[in-house]
Amino acid sequence: MDVRDYIESHAAEFFGALREWLAIPSISADPARLDDVRRSAEWLKEHLTGTGFDVAEIWPTDAAGSPGPAAVFAEWRASDPDAPVALVYGHHDVQPVEPLAEWDSPPFEPAERGGLLFGRGASDDKGQVLFHALGVRANLAVSGATRPPVTIKVLIEGEEESGSPHFADLLRANAGRLACDVVVVTDTGMWAADVPSMCVGMRGVVDAEIDLRGPERDLHSGSFGGGVPNPLHVLADLLSGLHDRDGHVTVPGFYDGVLPISADEREQIARLPFDEKAWLAEAGHSGAAAGEIGYSTLERIWTRPTAEVNGMWGGHTGPGGKTIVPAEAHAKLSFRLVANQQPDAVVAGLRQYVTDHTPPGIQATVTSHGSGVRPCFSAPDSPPVLAGRRAMERSFGQQVLFTREGGSGPEADLADILGAPLVFIGVGLDADRIHAPNERVDMALLLKGAEAAAYLWDELAAARPSAAGQGR
Amino acid sequence: MDVRDYIESHAAEFFGALREWLAIPSISADPARLDDVRRSAEWLKEHLTGTGFDVAEIWPTDAAGSPGPAAVFAEWRASDPDAPVALVYGHHDVQPVEPLAEWDSPPFEPAERGGLLFGRGASDDKGQVLFHALGVRANLAVSGATRPPVTIKVLIEGEEESGSPHFADLLRANAGRLACDVVVVTDTGMWAADVPSMCVGMRGVVDAEIDLRGPERDLHSGSFGGGVPNPLHVLADLLSGLHDRDGHVTVPGFYDGVLPISADEREQIARLPFDEKAWLAEAGHSGAAAGEIGYSTLERIWTRPTAEVNGMWGGHTGPGGKTIVPAEAHAKLSFRLVANQQPDAVVAGLRQYVTDHTPPGIQATVTSHGSGVRPCFSAPDSPPVLAGRRAMERSFGQQVLFTREGGSGPEADLADILGAPLVFIGVGLDADRIHAPNERVDMALLLKGAEAAAYLWDELAAARPSAAGQGR
Repeated sequence: MDVRDYIESHAAEFFGALREWLAIPSISADPARLDDVRRSAEWLKEHLTGTGFDVAEIWPTDAAGSPGPAAVFAEWRASDPDAPVALVYGHHDVQPVEPLAEWDSPPFEPAERGGLLFGRGASDDKGQVLFHALGVRANLAVSGATRPPVTIKVLIEGEEESGSPHFADLLRANAGRLACDVVVVTDTGMWAADVPSMCVGMRGVVDAEIDLRGPERDLHSGSFGGGVPNPLHVLADLLSGLHDRDGHVTVPGFYDGVLPISADEREQIARLPFDEKAWLAEAGHSGAAAGEIGYSTLERIWTRPTAEVNGMWGGHTGPGGKTIVPAEAHAKLSFRLVANQQPDAVVAGLRQYVTDHTPPGIQATVTSHGSGVRPCFSAPDSPPVLAGRRAMERSFGQQVLFTREGGSGPEADLADILGAPLVFIGVGLDADRIHAPNERVDMALLLKGAEAAAYLWDELAAARPSAAGQGR
Repeated sequence: MDVRDYIESHAAEFFGALREWLAIPSISADPARLDDVRRSAEWLKEHLTGTGFDVAEIWPTDAAGSPGPAAVFAEWRASDPDAPVALVYGHHDVQPVEPLAEWDSPPFEPAERGGLLFGRGASDDKGQVLFHALGVRANLAVSGATRPPVTIKVLIEGEEESGSPHFADLLRANAGRLACDVVVVTDTGMWAADVPSMCVGMRGVVDAEIDLRGPERDLHSGSFGGGVPNPLHVLADLLSGLHDRDGHVTVPGFYDGVLPISADEREQIARLPFDEKAWLAEAGHSGAAAGEIGYSTLERIWTRPTAEVNGMWGGHTGPGGKTIVPAEAHAKLSFRLVANQQPDAVVAGLRQYVTDHTPPGIQATVTSHGSGVRPCFSAPDSPPVLAGRRAMERSFGQQVLFTREGGSGPEADLADILGAPLVFIGVGLDADRIHAPNERVDMALLLKGAEAAAYLWDELAAARPSAAGQGR
């Protein structure tokens, strides 16, 4: 019996279990559904216990005062105490379902149509979390062992769709029990069903607000216009000067921490069948792509940091005209960051830029809320990523390419707080309609994910990451 | 008996009449005061009839549908049918009085304190309008004639403080009866009580709004940031580029119509005792003056056109952050214009500028509301201005300098619609607190104004403007 045979013979059982789990409406954003999130955690705990994990526990996230949806922790130790430790990350909470009328079948009554399983959470993230349980059973069935070749820890949070407000605290409070050599993130997707791929990085983000003040009050532009600095003109100059003609960000030191993209990764990104026109149409953007010179669109949105003005206001914004030199001008910005930029350093650079370019007579302040989200990145040629890629290639029988994601989730916290590299194993698709009505998952791809997960433990054991043993 | 003797001996009578008129609360902005505005017009009509005018009429301004505060027209023909015709312009409506608690004496109970007469309208504009009645009587008393040396027409509007919404229509409808060789505007001030001066120009104004549209909806900046044009970035570039490094406006053709300031006028402006620090402090501006290179502050705010951003908005402007590439960006602008710029041409130039500098993928529209206000200017060396200056210099016994004003009233309509040059004869001061609590007027200056007005008719008759007879 090989892995594929095992998985095929257990597919019906797997989907039966998944349908049960999908029927629990674990919407973390809805306070009225907290009990359902708890039921979902209980279901998973029971399922992992049945799978054979040594430990399966529910971890409440309400220690800090306000109660949060519960996470599930489980652990299955390897026989070899020196075996690498992998931590699987995913989430069991789901997005709200509105607008309900647009669903072709009820979101919490899973329905199979044409090889797709429809239901809220089918792809994001219950279906993908669950393939790990099938994968580890397949691994053991083939090896004949009673324990996996690496120690597998599992942390499935219950509030990812609500912005993971308690997640970093949970990681810090349980860093000892979560210690690992590699984090296997299973909450991302592939380029396409016939283009298997792995994510290797996510951009971070930090926000900032620029507030400019000129005169104490709005001035009559007939009396003062042309004779005093106008805060809106100064703001326009500041924001316009944030990029040079080539689209590079001019904030001092902005690129200091940036790890350049490797020639190999560029080459792999270039091989992705990217339809730029379709991508623009999806954005409702009739024009051309635009951005930093010297980079393709995918490189720009995945591998390059940005300075983006998200909002701007000042002076008279109501109906009709008002001939004033306004007292104030404001802008909200956010910077997308790539490894190894530091959010704090970027805000400090912006503060320097604003100080350097604000003329006399205008008071400028730069503030930032929170500490931002650090970017995460795993080098495509690092041993854990190569191990993951081999597992995916064995499952899909073809070369696996690399992608990144432009936005950020709680993944950077995992890397930062646990100090372990990330490997992204996921089989979701853009076509899965996550966060939208009629969410679905390609059932064949879920089984491919289980197969990759089955191989992954052998590959990680064989790779024996150089960091093995650290931090446990 | 000379003019001064006549005026001094009739001063008590003059101020008695003015106090009567000031007691009528002719606030045009308050619909509940329409009857008072009408009473104020009646009072003036009676006063001008008593002064000796051949004709004194009330002109309603409600012809166009919505009723407006009434204007007063009067005419006193010269004996010589070929004598020049002068039209005196002023207004009899007044500003609202709020905040009432800040008045030291009730706004409509005129009170004399230390040579100042306090009351709403004392300076703006009843006191100044009324000195013309005293002036023409003084002129006749000295000449012994029964008719003035020029035909004097008077048009005193009742809605200047409400933006003169019906004024242009009134001028057009009565252009025949208002035909004149020169318009004497009496609604401006002097540099200081000891620095008599005459205004020779006012800037015009035209507004415009720039609306930019990028994607159909706000986009997630993680997915699209750095890869598509951001309307806020484009707006910042457009607004920043509106001025070059020297503060010149870059709109195509912007300076084409601009009449350069003469060396003589620059020299006279330079002689005004201008305290730039005090001016900035008045504006609540802690910084330095700034503007177009090569011009002094007074030249900038009086004689140079501007492009001013009055308001700007787009994207997320509420609390907290929102990581979006926004769908839209907007700015409201106004351009202060100087002779002989045309509002339409400036808007057309802006439209060209925006078209030339908007990148693919952003739709831009430029709109302008109304047709703007044309600038007005009377050359300091033109015969009517020289006549007015001689009248002022005879009254004040010292050289009279030239100023301009940075903003616009209905004066440009007078010049444009009646086709006559403007001469500004006014004795208001910045210290008069017009539009503010405790408005007042320097009583000695009002009498100086009456004296200048008395001389003015002889000076205009002697100057016989080259345009005399035209348009009547």
